[in-house]
Amino acid sequence: MALIVHKYGGTSMGSPERIKNVAKRVAKWARAGHQMVVVPSAMSGETNRLLGLAKELAPAKESNAYMRELDMLASTGEQASSALLAIALQAEGMESISYAGWQVPIRTNSAFTKARIESIEDDKVRTDLNAGKVVIITGFQGVDEVSNITTLGRGGSDTSAVAVAAALKADECLIYTDVDGVYTTDPRVVPEAKRLKTVCFEEMLEMASLGSKVLQIRSVEFAGKYKVPLRVLSSFTPWDIDINEEAKSGTLITFEEDTQMEQAVVSGIAFNRDEAKISIIGVPDKPGIAYQILGAVADGNIEVDMIIQNIGKDGRTDFSFTVHRNDYARAIDLLNAKVLPNLGSAEVLGDTKICKVSIVGIGMRSHVGIASKMFRTLSEEGINIQMISTSEIKTSVVIDEKYMELAVRALHKAFDLDQVQA
Amino acid sequence: MALIVHKYGGTSMGSPERIKNVAKRVAKWARAGHQMVVVPSAMSGETNRLLGLAKELAPAKESNAYMRELDMLASTGEQASSALLAIALQAEGMESISYAGWQVPIRTNSAFTKARIESIEDDKVRTDLNAGKVVIITGFQGVDEVSNITTLGRGGSDTSAVAVAAALKADECLIYTDVDGVYTTDPRVVPEAKRLKTVCFEEMLEMASLGSKVLQIRSVEFAGKYKVPLRVLSSFTPWDIDINEEAKSGTLITFEEDTQMEQAVVSGIAFNRDEAKISIIGVPDKPGIAYQILGAVADGNIEVDMIIQNIGKDGRTDFSFTVHRNDYARAIDLLNAKVLPNLGSAEVLGDTKICKVSIVGIGMRSHVGIASKMFRTLSEEGINIQMISTSEIKTSVVIDEKYMELAVRALHKAFDLDQVQA
Repeated sequence: MALIVHKYGGTSMGSPERIKNVAKRVAKWARAGHQMVVVPSAMSGETNRLLGLAKELAPAKESNAYMRELDMLASTGEQASSALLAIALQAEGMESISYAGWQVPIRTNSAFTKARIESIEDDKVRTDLNAGKVVIITGFQGVDEVSNITTLGRGGSDTSAVAVAAALKADECLIYTDVDGVYTTDPRVVPEAKRLKTVCFEEMLEMASLGSKVLQIRSVEFAGKYKVPLRVLSSFTPWDIDINEEAKSGTLITFEEDTQMEQAVVSGIAFNRDEAKISIIGVPDKPGIAYQILGAVADGNIEVDMIIQNIGKDGRTDFSFTVHRNDYARAIDLLNAKVLPNLGSAEVLGDTKICKVSIVGIGMRSHVGIASKMFRTLSEEGINIQMISTSEIKTSVVIDEKYMELAVRALHKAFDLDQVQA
Repeated sequence: MALIVHKYGGTSMGSPERIKNVAKRVAKWARAGHQMVVVPSAMSGETNRLLGLAKELAPAKESNAYMRELDMLASTGEQASSALLAIALQAEGMESISYAGWQVPIRTNSAFTKARIESIEDDKVRTDLNAGKVVIITGFQGVDEVSNITTLGRGGSDTSAVAVAAALKADECLIYTDVDGVYTTDPRVVPEAKRLKTVCFEEMLEMASLGSKVLQIRSVEFAGKYKVPLRVLSSFTPWDIDINEEAKSGTLITFEEDTQMEQAVVSGIAFNRDEAKISIIGVPDKPGIAYQILGAVADGNIEVDMIIQNIGKDGRTDFSFTVHRNDYARAIDLLNAKVLPNLGSAEVLGDTKICKVSIVGIGMRSHVGIASKMFRTLSEEGINIQMISTSEIKTSVVIDEKYMELAVRALHKAFDLDQVQA
């Protein structure tokens, strides 16, 4: 008997018929003798419907009071889908109970619309599991220390599932989604993309953060931190597929470097167009300048991804970084209001028409020449590189967004990813 | 400066445009210097949509576990509408915050889908009001002592509003609805029905419980118990109507017998077809028999309305009562399973094709012959009376439901209610 956490995305929960299928699948696992915890997303379209209503009432605002209400609003989607799943499980003859984040409770900080989980109490859930109940826990949401409902931001249900699995020391966390695993890149862009049977945690972290869209990055961080075995698999297999076959499907995220993996130098090509580039030109080249700029941005609760500082000249340097496009306008305002006045003649430039493309592979650690092969490939396609950032297991470039598909396809071919054996 | 509670029904909250109008109306009251608390229902159609999804997943069941999930599900409707109203108020330039029942908290017992409010904490709300915020509190819901979400049953938002008004010792509770007040009877049945400027609390209690559909009965009980001045008025007047005119519109529910009222012997004709009749024939005529029957029904959490016991004959009697139609099948099952086996040769008969029609009036206390005038009127129309029940200020009859409209129209005319001066 194992303790298993299932997470189902909005598409899997998209209609009463689909919810019934989820219930049948979960019941199959429970009847196989496992203790089951399920974390569902809102029914597909529901979160957008709710936020759409809010938009009709008020232009997007940054006030804390407004974002608190957005969380009150959006969190209802998962509460409803969780109750519906509990009802469907009861109709399947399983004892089942649903909990909203605040009931568990899943405690978070108070950063509305993008809160972070701080702790999860497991008493209630364990009592129910020991009583033979299937426990449903709302994804995406928690409660802060003064009883405000918070949400974790888009994709937060993955994080909820992994955090719950970590808190319960679950044997495995299965993320059911509308793709059947992690691919060498997005098959919609490169039809030759191949599914990976395993991917190591560090690669997955880079793939997720860089936009492979399979899992939310924080869920992978959580899984890595607490060593939660994590599997991404399809919710579109028939619910009555053999459980042993199902348990081996999809992509397993491993925590040890697999000998297999060492052979593939590059495991995947990640990309996204969610970011915008901000450059501050003519910054005084002196100690503390990066903190002066990025500290203000961080105080505005804006996450920064790539950061580049060029070599200075004449006591001045250029400083560039990328932020999420949703935060772009706010970041520009914030820099103009709070940072620029202290930087003399510096000037802020921004560009939202960019994308980021990365090659990721644990094998890059022990191979040289990978980055230069990437640059050569892009150069051969006539694609200009605007920013470069490297780490041990990835190399990322920022390019004009109109070249994104071209770049991804060229790199996928150049690194022989269409030859991967699933 | 007064402390005012507004309650808006689902129709008033039915679209973003309507929510904006509610926000503008509330803002008008706040700008006139009042401390404002608002209790909204779910957007019209939302509760039915949610419960419809549940029905697609499972046939209606009576298990506690199932009803707990229905409450988790249904309560999301008010949470969403409350957050939307807070956002609309913020867009109007008012500081505003919404609370779900559990956040206030509004404490209830654990009778899922028809919980009763036990207490309301007012600290948080008072702090916000004193800080100048408009406070939105979800109608229809609360939390039990082990943090389960509960709902108060259909129309429960009225009760929430009055209970909140009582807890805060509000100066007045205004129930905005899609009718412009309390009428002598339902104008859809009798076009000549007239609006009452005032109605006394006891009459209102009878009118509400008998189906005037303007207010939920428990909200009137609460208002009476805590002497909350309660006004029913239309939410379809323009939001920018003069506040003094608005404050005097609709129908005020009074707590003292008004001299005016004494002149109208009968104030209104109430009716409903929500009930079903259950008769147990051939019950042993001995002490404790009513308890034996109704105790079992009460244990099943089924509310009983009219109760009639005929004079016994040969040691046997007949016992009849009415329950809500939704509870009818369950009541019959329960009687057959738990009560009949102990009653010898008794037999259960039921009828769902009935309706109840009542004449209500505080003036009936000091006038004789009112009931007989009612019976004569029905007799002249050829309507057979199946059950009769009387109290100081009302007389109710159960008749075949097909005669309902006919009976109401005839009684409305017989008691000169079309002559009432609004």
